Amino acid sequence: MSRVVRVAAAQLGPVQREHSRADVVDRLGALLRAAHADGAQLVAFPELALTTFFPRWWYDDGDSALDEWYEREMPGPDTKPLFDEAARLGVGFVLGYAELADGGRRFNTAVLVGPDGTEVGRYRKIHLPGHDEHEPWRRFQHLEKRYFEVGDRGFPTFDAFGGTVGMLICNDRRWPEAYRVLGLQGVELVCIGYNTPVHNPPAPEHDEHGDFHNHLVMQAGAYQNGTFVVGVAKAGEEEGVPMIGGTCIIHPSGRILAEVAGLGDELAVADCDLDDCTSYKTTVFDLRRHRVPSQYRALVDE
Amino acid sequence: MSRVVRVAAAQLGPVQREHSRADVVDRLGALLRAAHADGAQLVAFPELALTTFFPRWWYDDGDSALDEWYEREMPGPDTKPLFDEAARLGVGFVLGYAELADGGRRFNTAVLVGPDGTEVGRYRKIHLPGHDEHEPWRRFQHLEKRYFEVGDRGFPTFDAFGGTVGMLICNDRRWPEAYRVLGLQGVELVCIGYNTPVHNPPAPEHDEHGDFHNHLVMQAGAYQNGTFVVGVAKAGEEEGVPMIGGTCIIHPSGRILAEVAGLGDELAVADCDLDDCTSYKTTVFDLRRHRVPSQYRALVDE
Repeated sequence: MSRVVRVAAAQLGPVQREHSRADVVDRLGALLRAAHADGAQLVAFPELALTTFFPRWWYDDGDSALDEWYEREMPGPDTKPLFDEAARLGVGFVLGYAELADGGRRFNTAVLVGPDGTEVGRYRKIHLPGHDEHEPWRRFQHLEKRYFEVGDRGFPTFDAFGGTVGMLICNDRRWPEAYRVLGLQGVELVCIGYNTPVHNPPAPEHDEHGDFHNHLVMQAGAYQNGTFVVGVAKAGEEEGVPMIGGTCIIHPSGRILAEVAGLGDELAVADCDLDDCTSYKTTVFDLRRHRVPSQYRALVDE
Repeated sequence: MSRVVRVAAAQLGPVQREHSRADVVDRLGALLRAAHADGAQLVAFPELALTTFFPRWWYDDGDSALDEWYEREMPGPDTKPLFDEAARLGVGFVLGYAELADGGRRFNTAVLVGPDGTEVGRYRKIHLPGHDEHEPWRRFQHLEKRYFEVGDRGFPTFDAFGGTVGMLICNDRRWPEAYRVLGLQGVELVCIGYNTPVHNPPAPEHDEHGDFHNHLVMQAGAYQNGTFVVGVAKAGEEEGVPMIGGTCIIHPSGRILAEVAGLGDELAVADCDLDDCTSYKTTVFDLRRHRVPSQYRALVDE
């Protein structure tokens, strides 16, 4: 039985502060329909797709304006139309959003939704970048360490789309540990949404390498674990802050199969034959055969 | 005080079966002198540099012909001239060789030698690729799992050349765990020698990607740990088996600073400012600040 999954990486152009959830869901719906028309079975949307990247602003403790960026339910009133449209078309998707969970816990989350429009599972971001105090010297803030808790569900995989699917979010993709924990579970397709400013205030000397680093880490993660990787940007200039694009679909060889051309609402589409993972997982990256965990103790030292 | 180290990656062309240690040491000496003339302070030679890549052949247990590929002392009579020449020039080097240690233990080893010609430390390869039984269907064997033990010294780093230096060997470079254990010790320069056949008998579909994979894993390892990486091939056709080249020096940005052009005895030389590691180690790859070891337990499960 064929295990070819046609995947669309659905890049979003910028979402400005004045754009409502309904505005964005309209754009997501248009991308979903275009992907379906191209035969896609799974559509991957970026991190924090429903709003502008709000961790760029400081909010005082208790400022209820912060809460407005979070979703209390998924789907909720604004997002239900997207779930309904996906179910009508029979297309699954991955969607990143800010989650306000029980007990007021806040996570940077991605949900995997099956072609019937029901949730398959979710992932809560573990590698939170940035800082947790106000740093006014920055041209813009990056307060993920303040506005989110570290994810509390590990790096789960899910049986879906005929294979083993995982999710990572933005900064997670720079950490080989994250791919490896998925790889040890046999992951075959990793969907990764991101919002990555071109400018890194503490290290502006990295700015010229942003696109290169983005692809480098995802290509290495794909190859070193024998998995497809789908990287999806929210791109372009949001609220005066330029963000990289580079949305792409990567083969287990590490080669880029499809890539967008620009920084707007765009699709990259590729047929992902999940059986292509096998030749990596059973040879050079046969993890059980070739890894030497006894030598890796330092990796888990706190 | 400047921490710029001028490094030469000294690629070796093929070493055939009939070439003696003395032949090879002559070639290493010529590369050493050329590197010194170009101002190099450290010269990195490849894995198993002193002989042809002998794990491509099967030897029955107890066949003393196998023993002839190993060094019983380092330096020994054949290699002493290289140590002497390096000390005379005041150049350090890294040299890979097959080590027959006390008790008949066999390791795939690299030694780091200081500019005074004395040993700084050694590393014994941990990720042994290939197989441990005769597989006659292969065009050539890859019997590292038979002819070597897993290294017993972990992934050490050494204070040398004004910085923190580590070594990896060949297949180690494909494993992010190896770089990370070095990265957690603050490594700033990783020297990696390799012998990599173009053709992978169990997965010939990877052959076309060999050069790409070689650079991909080393560039990712450099960037993700904020370290220079020096990758050095034994290249070209040995005993009918073509091997990749791609010898290069990689910046902590992941960018390739210098690369050889061909498959012969050749140098790639670059000034490595070890202080360039800082902007990675203190920001995006501040390992203590951003890693989440509690989520990595699966990495050390046996």
